[in-house]
Amino acid sequence: MTRTIAERLDDPEAAQAEGRRKMDWAEAHMPILAELRESFAAEQPLDGERIAMAMHVEAKTAVLVELLAIGGAEVAITGCNPLSTQDDVSAALHAVDGVTSYAAHGVDTEEYYDAIEAVVDVDPTITVDDGADMVTHIHDEHPELIPQLKGGCEETTTGVHRLRSMADDGALDYPMFAVNDTPMKTLFDNVHGTGESAMANIAMTTNLAVAGKTVVVAGYGYCGRGVAKKASGMNADVVVTEVDPRRALEAHMEGHEVLPMNEAAAEGDIFVTTTGNRDVITREDFEQMADGVVLANAGHFDVEINLAELDDLAETRREVRDGVEEYALPDGRRVNVLAEGRLVNLAGPLSMGHPVEVMDQSFGVQAVCVRELAANPDAYDAGVHEVPDRLDREVAEVKLDAEDIDIDTLSDEQREYMDSWDHGT
Amino acid sequence: MTRTIAERLDDPEAAQAEGRRKMDWAEAHMPILAELRESFAAEQPLDGERIAMAMHVEAKTAVLVELLAIGGAEVAITGCNPLSTQDDVSAALHAVDGVTSYAAHGVDTEEYYDAIEAVVDVDPTITVDDGADMVTHIHDEHPELIPQLKGGCEETTTGVHRLRSMADDGALDYPMFAVNDTPMKTLFDNVHGTGESAMANIAMTTNLAVAGKTVVVAGYGYCGRGVAKKASGMNADVVVTEVDPRRALEAHMEGHEVLPMNEAAAEGDIFVTTTGNRDVITREDFEQMADGVVLANAGHFDVEINLAELDDLAETRREVRDGVEEYALPDGRRVNVLAEGRLVNLAGPLSMGHPVEVMDQSFGVQAVCVRELAANPDAYDAGVHEVPDRLDREVAEVKLDAEDIDIDTLSDEQREYMDSWDHGT
Amino acid sequence: MTRTIAERLDDPEAAQAEGRRKMDWAEAHMPILAELRESFAAEQPLDGERIAMAMHVEAKTAVLVELLAIGGAEVAITGCNPLSTQDDVSAALHAVDGVTSYAAHGVDTEEYYDAIEAVVDVDPTITVDDGADMVTHIHDEHPELIPQLKGGCEETTTGVHRLRSMADDGALDYPMFAVNDTPMKTLFDNVHGTGESAMANIAMTTNLAVAGKTVVVAGYGYCGRGVAKKASGMNADVVVTEVDPRRALEAHMEGHEVLPMNEAAAEGDIFVTTTGNRDVITREDFEQMADGVVLANAGHFDVEINLAELDDLAETRREVRDGVEEYALPDGRRVNVLAEGRLVNLAGPLSMGHPVEVMDQSFGVQAVCVRELAANPDAYDAGVHEVPDRLDREVAEVKLDAEDIDIDTLSDEQREYMDSWDHGT
Amino acid sequence: MTRTIAERLDDPEAAQAEGRRKMDWAEAHMPILAELRESFAAEQPLDGERIAMAMHVEAKTAVLVELLAIGGAEVAITGCNPLSTQDDVSAALHAVDGVTSYAAHGVDTEEYYDAIEAVVDVDPTITVDDGADMVTHIHDEHPELIPQLKGGCEETTTGVHRLRSMADDGALDYPMFAVNDTPMKTLFDNVHGTGESAMANIAMTTNLAVAGKTVVVAGYGYCGRGVAKKASGMNADVVVTEVDPRRALEAHMEGHEVLPMNEAAAEGDIFVTTTGNRDVITREDFEQMADGVVLANAGHFDVEINLAELDDLAETRREVRDGVEEYALPDGRRVNVLAEGRLVNLAGPLSMGHPVEVMDQSFGVQAVCVRELAANPDAYDAGVHEVPDRLDREVAEVKLDAEDIDIDTLSDEQREYMDSWDHGT
Repeated sequence: MTRTIAERLDDPEAAQAEGRRKMDWAEAHMPILAELRESFAAEQPLDGERIAMAMHVEAKTAVLVELLAIGGAEVAITGCNPLSTQDDVSAALHAVDGVTSYAAHGVDTEEYYDAIEAVVDVDPTITVDDGADMVTHIHDEHPELIPQLKGGCEETTTGVHRLRSMADDGALDYPMFAVNDTPMKTLFDNVHGTGESAMANIAMTTNLAVAGKTVVVAGYGYCGRGVAKKASGMNADVVVTEVDPRRALEAHMEGHEVLPMNEAAAEGDIFVTTTGNRDVITREDFEQMADGVVLANAGHFDVEINLAELDDLAETRREVRDGVEEYALPDGRRVNVLAEGRLVNLAGPLSMGHPVEVMDQSFGVQAVCVRELAANPDAYDAGVHEVPDRLDREVAEVKLDAEDIDIDTLSDEQREYMDSWDHGT
Repeated sequence: MTRTIAERLDDPEAAQAEGRRKMDWAEAHMPILAELRESFAAEQPLDGERIAMAMHVEAKTAVLVELLAIGGAEVAITGCNPLSTQDDVSAALHAVDGVTSYAAHGVDTEEYYDAIEAVVDVDPTITVDDGADMVTHIHDEHPELIPQLKGGCEETTTGVHRLRSMADDGALDYPMFAVNDTPMKTLFDNVHGTGESAMANIAMTTNLAVAGKTVVVAGYGYCGRGVAKKASGMNADVVVTEVDPRRALEAHMEGHEVLPMNEAAAEGDIFVTTTGNRDVITREDFEQMADGVVLANAGHFDVEINLAELDDLAETRREVRDGVEEYALPDGRRVNVLAEGRLVNLAGPLSMGHPVEVMDQSFGVQAVCVRELAANPDAYDAGVHEVPDRLDREVAEVKLDAEDIDIDTLSDEQREYMDSWDHGT
Repeated sequence: MTRTIAERLDDPEAAQAEGRRKMDWAEAHMPILAELRESFAAEQPLDGERIAMAMHVEAKTAVLVELLAIGGAEVAITGCNPLSTQDDVSAALHAVDGVTSYAAHGVDTEEYYDAIEAVVDVDPTITVDDGADMVTHIHDEHPELIPQLKGGCEETTTGVHRLRSMADDGALDYPMFAVNDTPMKTLFDNVHGTGESAMANIAMTTNLAVAGKTVVVAGYGYCGRGVAKKASGMNADVVVTEVDPRRALEAHMEGHEVLPMNEAAAEGDIFVTTTGNRDVITREDFEQMADGVVLANAGHFDVEINLAELDDLAETRREVRDGVEEYALPDGRRVNVLAEGRLVNLAGPLSMGHPVEVMDQSFGVQAVCVRELAANPDAYDAGVHEVPDRLDREVAEVKLDAEDIDIDTLSDEQREYMDSWDHGT
Repeated sequence: MTRTIAERLDDPEAAQAEGRRKMDWAEAHMPILAELRESFAAEQPLDGERIAMAMHVEAKTAVLVELLAIGGAEVAITGCNPLSTQDDVSAALHAVDGVTSYAAHGVDTEEYYDAIEAVVDVDPTITVDDGADMVTHIHDEHPELIPQLKGGCEETTTGVHRLRSMADDGALDYPMFAVNDTPMKTLFDNVHGTGESAMANIAMTTNLAVAGKTVVVAGYGYCGRGVAKKASGMNADVVVTEVDPRRALEAHMEGHEVLPMNEAAAEGDIFVTTTGNRDVITREDFEQMADGVVLANAGHFDVEINLAELDDLAETRREVRDGVEEYALPDGRRVNVLAEGRLVNLAGPLSMGHPVEVMDQSFGVQAVCVRELAANPDAYDAGVHEVPDRLDREVAEVKLDAEDIDIDTLSDEQREYMDSWDHGT
């Protein structure tokens, strides 16, 4: 029988107090969720909904979960990564009315999937995912729930990619919002959130300088360009690897050197993978690397750096520093891997995930999407849906309002001009 | 009877030599068009086509036009802006086999439209536009040509916007490629091309420092963010105005201050409009501005800065420096307008348009789109079409090849991984 | 009787093992000290010297201390800040042959000065300071030692400033090297070291985004411009306060807004003080600040933010997050202070001081300066001395060599040209 | 008999009107000189002085010269570079009461030195130089004037370097202010002035993109880091060459690649020399370069790129574009040299020198230094003098005032704290 976090901990109340303190800090810096909390409390838009969630369970996520409960939903949640759960936050969440948390730090693979199974017991009408583990689990193991599911939300590039593959195979049987792809998420969370937190975690975990280093960024999607941008901003010389020629050219035009990984391997001091793909750094790359290089992953899964091959090559392996595993190669070179190749900004010893404010935006979109699924259950077919523009825009307007930023509005003449086509040179 | 450029000039041969020298320089830095020239010469993909063009007639455009002629087409061309034509280049182009040029610098509005009409005499099968003046002229004045038109290409944000408005009105009667919107154009030409050339032109025309200035950028689309990026890179403090909340937030998260124009007006030293809309800076804004401000437009049409209102406000107006018109207000403040509010990187006294290499990319897309329309005339319905991804990608690959940049390719395992959805945490 | 770190700890051997692991990591990334270790071991340049040190006792410092011991010196050390000592490193250091460490974390003021007194028992011939506490203590309490002191080294801006004031008062009685002021230190440690580590610590301690924030940097010396540079690199909008008009202009020309603190107070989200002066942020500034602001100090002493005045204003005060003290003002606004206003990159809960590589440079200079004092005891008068250029250059050359960076050398003709003055236009 | 500019021109009045228009624009953007004009007019501090000048004669210099005349001086001026003189400005200057101008564009070497000789006829009490040609000419040819010379000012790095070499040889016989070295000059003019204008001139003269290019900057002094900074800001990948190990490390820590020139030669697309030395790019470098590279010089003299060696290597040479000389090598590679290897921001076809505002700062220092020499003729010995800090500071304060920038002032307590040394941890 899978245990809730409260059943796992020796002193759940102490944990809960500490978790609540963390949530308070996050909440104070999440103005979008604060604004939504007022309307959700008043209007109970989620009354009667049951929500199954698999997310990184830390303070910011907890503020979202609490918001959903305040909006009237019953919520069950577990982690989406064995190392990213903070037990104290999980405990504080479990103490919230209407919320059950099974998320626990450091569970093994069996426990991980058991917890997902436990969440499904909530008999969900809506799912919320970060990496698509819940939605795939339901399709695989609980097809009987699909008729009652109004829809779901997916947070990450990787998860949306998996969902699109499912949809292409005709295997996605209820509607999913690609929260990841909406401007309010991808332009902020991926670029600034991943960029800042990956680089700050690398700097703090290693205590190494970024200035003067060659940082190899694998992948130049939104996450990759965020990492490249922040690394450049800290005065690194950035090298980019890509498989798409347009993205490669974009990186080149930013002033970055573009190389195949096997050549970049010989140049880099720090490597950050952001591709969402497997085997981005492999044996033949390790063989090129200089002594003392640092490898970190900022993609969703821990498959980007092929650690099995590195382990094969290495003579010894030891934790040389908290969160840093040193693989010593026979010729004396040392390769340092951060956070076991898992998401460096979530799974490292100092990690707290993305900055609070960018998660406020992403979770603001999550909240209004959940609200939309509850309100308009028949509006969406099975498949992957973009977040409706009006919802994304609503979140942006709430944020501008919270930041006290005024912008211009189109006059009637301007609107007419933009809609017309008969003006010329 | 509209005259060709050769008929207009006193010494067309001298002009032609100078124009050819300019074309040679551009050609030497346009590796994509160089590569296409070989295949176009060998395969004659445009054999039998007649192409009507309205473009900025300067050296880079001329290299494209010559390529189309080399590919077998008969081409007639005129300008798309009265001030951007370089007569010597127009003359050199007119001397190319298969090309007739009516483009001349400084023509008035009547002559401008007469020249468009003259181009139509080529009896086109394909059109190429920069601002949509040719395509709208044909719809308005020569509907009889529409059945024979295989399609057209449009280069600019503004032109594509006009075409979409036409299409929304059911008024676009042949297929048009939105060349502007394709990654190989918009991510390079708009960002780096407009950004670099606008700022360099402003700096050189005024001989003022950019460092330490407050630069107000109106609009944060691809052009606007290019201008903001390059201005920041020259150590300006950038303020952004926007009407879209997401773009406003993006600008804010880059570190730019975001204000309504009427507040930005009081802060700015240099103003650059990039919105594609009219009346972006108006009377109430001029009234807020400090003495000595500089106004420049980097949007397609000269409607962004309301010069009529500025003229109303001003006591006197004089050209205080080549390309700089000073409007003296009654209270002693002076407002300096560059290039009469026309595209500052095309219509100024030193202007040569976008950098050669970014136009090589944009024109590479133009060339393969024209080739596509000739090859597959029935594949596209009337309306606005995105450039097919394979064409955009082809141009990117040619460019990477020319720059000697190698990139990674997906292994079969990686491709399979990206297509699968059953891998989990 | 003051206790050594070994006498203070319950399990000094466990601490020592952990401290050694930290030292190993640092040592692997300190190529300059590694190179010097070879020559110091071989040549024993410090044979017979006794060195009294007051430094931040963490892993990088420990690598320097060990180097001095390897070079033949007897070393006694204590901390130069009650919160920056890491007990495990102190224990590992104490276990090194020839080293005694009195440094312990969290000592009170009395214990702090007792430990300095205990260090003096080593009967020093050379002192090494970080903040000038040792040198001032010796002048105040142990003038009898001055005749035997060959000299000392001072690491920080603040310490050098104190020494110059002493010298101006005729109160500095032995020679001191201003290690802080030498190019190899100030251009790297202050700019990149302070800049990167301050911003990374602020980001990680708060889990807040830097992008889109207004960061107010007080002081635009080398540390301040480092913080401003890295904050801009993370996409903050940077505001600078200064008292020197040239530095103010420099900040302005970088694109930063320059304001008096009392106006900046109303604009900022994050404040970082780097002035070396007291009362940089005071009551009237706190009164202007927005709810939720974050205050951090990157100057040597904890006097820059006037916490007494903030405490007076506040109704309550609580640790709202590890390393974050929240002062709640009567009107509901909250002011968050990091690391109790002490050096944020040293005294915070996640802090590990400057990046390893920049300390390698600074400590490389320290090491060669100590060697110089031992070798040429009569070459320097009492007073503050610049580091001899040849020593600074030696360290730079070792570093370039370690990084495998080749540079050009002047030809004879070039050297002659540079020395001549009779060539003209 | 050397002719004044008025005697040289066919229509000096037309030239004078155009020159005055240029001066008006500059004057409107030179607030420091504007402020000084008021006090100079009122107080006539230069009454009775005779000033001999050799400067780049263009609009900004002219505003300085006019200021000196307004202050009561008689001024004679000529150019300091045959290509940087603008004849219309020279004519306008000649028309100013008390000013005689011999500066003319395109003079040959003999005429150049004849004009310097003619200037000496003014029987100077003060000299003002840009490159030290006047001061060396007087020492060589007119030692009889030295007793009456109160002193001189030198504007450039190169000139100050020549003066220091003279002083080292005991060959400098009157006092000279090293205007170049003062913070208000070197931190602004060299960094931002040279950086912005060099890059803008290169971009506009070639019409090539900077983004995506590898820009090799030779020398990482103030000019070099300015060029590197602005090139990076335009998204170039910057490579630096140096002979000083500290500067090389600084460049490395900024994120630039550092290479010897002979290796950089193979990597670069654009090369900019800023060293002040000769033969920075030579035959063996040309042999490494890619087809189509662009070479520009931003150092004072045209000796940095060895054009004689390039000419030797080349088969043909032609002006391929205004201001661009193409050297065609036997193997087909083309090397493009801008502005004949002279200062690219002064001697190119579009060049107007440094931005107005940075020259306002530099010339503000010049003006107060000339005033100081007139007021305190006995205060300075023969030799090179730093600009007194109070003068530099005065100019900074005037500038801040003109820009409406307020800064903080030290309180008595703060001043006391900074002067004290007995506060501790």
